[in-house]
Amino acid sequence: MASAAAPDQSPRPVRFGILGCASIARKLARAMLLAPGAAVAAVGSRSEEKARLFAADNGLDAATTRLHGSYEALLDDPDVDAVYLPLPTSLHVRWAAAAAARGKHVLLEKPTALCAADLDAILAACDAAGVQFMDSTMWMHHPRTAKMRELVDGKEAIGDIKVINSVFSFRANEDFLQNDIRVKPDLDALGSLGDVGWYCIRAILWAVDYELPKTVIALRDPVKNRAGVLLACGATLYWADGKTATFNCSFLTNLTMDVTLVGTNGTLHLTDFVIPYEEKSAEFCVASKSNFAKLHTRWDPLPSKHVVTTDLPQEALMVQEFARLVQNIRDAGGKPEGKWPAITRKTQVVLDAVKASIDKGSEPIEVAS
Amino acid sequence: MASAAAPDQSPRPVRFGILGCASIARKLARAMLLAPGAAVAAVGSRSEEKARLFAADNGLDAATTRLHGSYEALLDDPDVDAVYLPLPTSLHVRWAAAAAARGKHVLLEKPTALCAADLDAILAACDAAGVQFMDSTMWMHHPRTAKMRELVDGKEAIGDIKVINSVFSFRANEDFLQNDIRVKPDLDALGSLGDVGWYCIRAILWAVDYELPKTVIALRDPVKNRAGVLLACGATLYWADGKTATFNCSFLTNLTMDVTLVGTNGTLHLTDFVIPYEEKSAEFCVASKSNFAKLHTRWDPLPSKHVVTTDLPQEALMVQEFARLVQNIRDAGGKPEGKWPAITRKTQVVLDAVKASIDKGSEPIEVAS
Repeated sequence: MASAAAPDQSPRPVRFGILGCASIARKLARAMLLAPGAAVAAVGSRSEEKARLFAADNGLDAATTRLHGSYEALLDDPDVDAVYLPLPTSLHVRWAAAAAARGKHVLLEKPTALCAADLDAILAACDAAGVQFMDSTMWMHHPRTAKMRELVDGKEAIGDIKVINSVFSFRANEDFLQNDIRVKPDLDALGSLGDVGWYCIRAILWAVDYELPKTVIALRDPVKNRAGVLLACGATLYWADGKTATFNCSFLTNLTMDVTLVGTNGTLHLTDFVIPYEEKSAEFCVASKSNFAKLHTRWDPLPSKHVVTTDLPQEALMVQEFARLVQNIRDAGGKPEGKWPAITRKTQVVLDAVKASIDKGSEPIEVAS
Repeated sequence: MASAAAPDQSPRPVRFGILGCASIARKLARAMLLAPGAAVAAVGSRSEEKARLFAADNGLDAATTRLHGSYEALLDDPDVDAVYLPLPTSLHVRWAAAAAARGKHVLLEKPTALCAADLDAILAACDAAGVQFMDSTMWMHHPRTAKMRELVDGKEAIGDIKVINSVFSFRANEDFLQNDIRVKPDLDALGSLGDVGWYCIRAILWAVDYELPKTVIALRDPVKNRAGVLLACGATLYWADGKTATFNCSFLTNLTMDVTLVGTNGTLHLTDFVIPYEEKSAEFCVASKSNFAKLHTRWDPLPSKHVVTTDLPQEALMVQEFARLVQNIRDAGGKPEGKWPAITRKTQVVLDAVKASIDKGSEPIEVAS
């Protein structure tokens, strides 16, 4: 224990306010408890009772967690540094911009907005207020992702990536398909494209170091519910230099989280890219300079499996990184890190193009930069 | 050892003639030595010397293997039951039809023809002569394929397949890209589409139990060499019920052999579908009714790995199956098995549609039945 004469040198934790008690917020509340440099200061919901239940259910300290019965009240809380915002997508532009305007740093659930214009309003508000923006795409923060980045950037193992495939689907049950916010046109109008396609698009952009494709063409015959919300769709992305990427995203097929990168020198496979099979350890496979043994009877060399361990789950690492950036601004006069909003915007721009192609019956759409 | 008084009851081996000494024929010669019910009776090449060298290099018995200095001479050999034909694709229609016309059963390398019309000429000749036809798509005969078939047909593990992805590529060296028959417009005009795309199309059709897609749309920007031969291309296939499949086939990226099936109940992955990593054992992974543990922190249940062993390599199993069918015709008055030419034709018909879409700048092409 530090004595009174030796002041604690570690920075003050970032005080998070959780704005909305969506199911995904439970995972983030746990992450905030686990992440160094973070603390849950407040929960805001449409009623104080819902906030209280959420806090109790998620192990938040009743003595130190303030409970707010409205989103406004949470944003007015002067002892909140940053908000985590898991509201339905249609509400993001209003509440994320409002949070930024009150000087709160913004950790925003994906999809970040219904369209790039809405996202731009959010980013402009963050920019004007000098607050940090980050979207809540957790897998970006897993050390496996850093390891793969190193491998891809090294060029030797994979070479020039030419083909990318990604699939993210899960099999929604009847209750989800009838009642979940992600199938409601007034709440999450982007459906499976926003909820799971977001990850595929991000993975594809990640793989090419965020170079935007030139053209996007949606796969034909997307599946929509009666309200017109996408339940399953996909697209092919084309770059000027001939790279192509195809993704499928669906609420109608078994849980699948694939990314495959095929390069001139090597091939990378992972099949659990959004949420690893296990929390403490994650794998990916690389086949590099693959060839055959004599008479093509077997492969030589064989692909190799890479295992990356982590003490903290990826969502806690995300919170930790966000908190570090906030501390740098709050305590050291630093500026917001521009990398995160830039990545978000590119993801949203491609998502917009896919949506436009779907809406136009799979016509090619040029990607705006 | 069987005594003279106890005649051997096992059927006489099928006497194969190898028509052309292509590199792939070396693998098949070994398969014929390994496969029960098969024997290499003769080798035919453009010169007797080439045939002699091939026989010597591949461990064929000099005393019992007849060497022919022309393809015609091999077809005239009355002690040849069946020919294996690994010639360049442009020569298939001439020599496969000629073989059938002389009553030889035909095991034909893939791609079987430059177009479905040529294949139809071959199949008509086989039909008229009452001989067995089979294409040399080896992985079809691996016990892993039978195991996966069982799983897919069972419906419970995978459910209704909605999305299929396949990639087959290998990184050709400069010598291949300059000199191999597979980049020559007069020899193998289908390039990567015929050589490796064939397998992707077959795998996709296999997955849907050979239901033909309704429409095919080539991916944009295929890569061709100066002579116009395809080096890298791909397509998306659409079925009337909403299933889609995408494949990529290339001579320009690392060796990759992926098939992914995404169904309503489960997901199947394999990454070495054409030639397994190891000769005696092959794997595939199935994730079925996948879900998450609490808070979506990990998967529960995890995918399972299936391992299938085989004493004989897949190409020997193919030769064995072909020999069995030939013996049934030759020795027991049976009829040719229609399943194999039917599968071949569907593969070729889809390949034709992809080629047509490529030639028309990725226009949708309706698949002829």
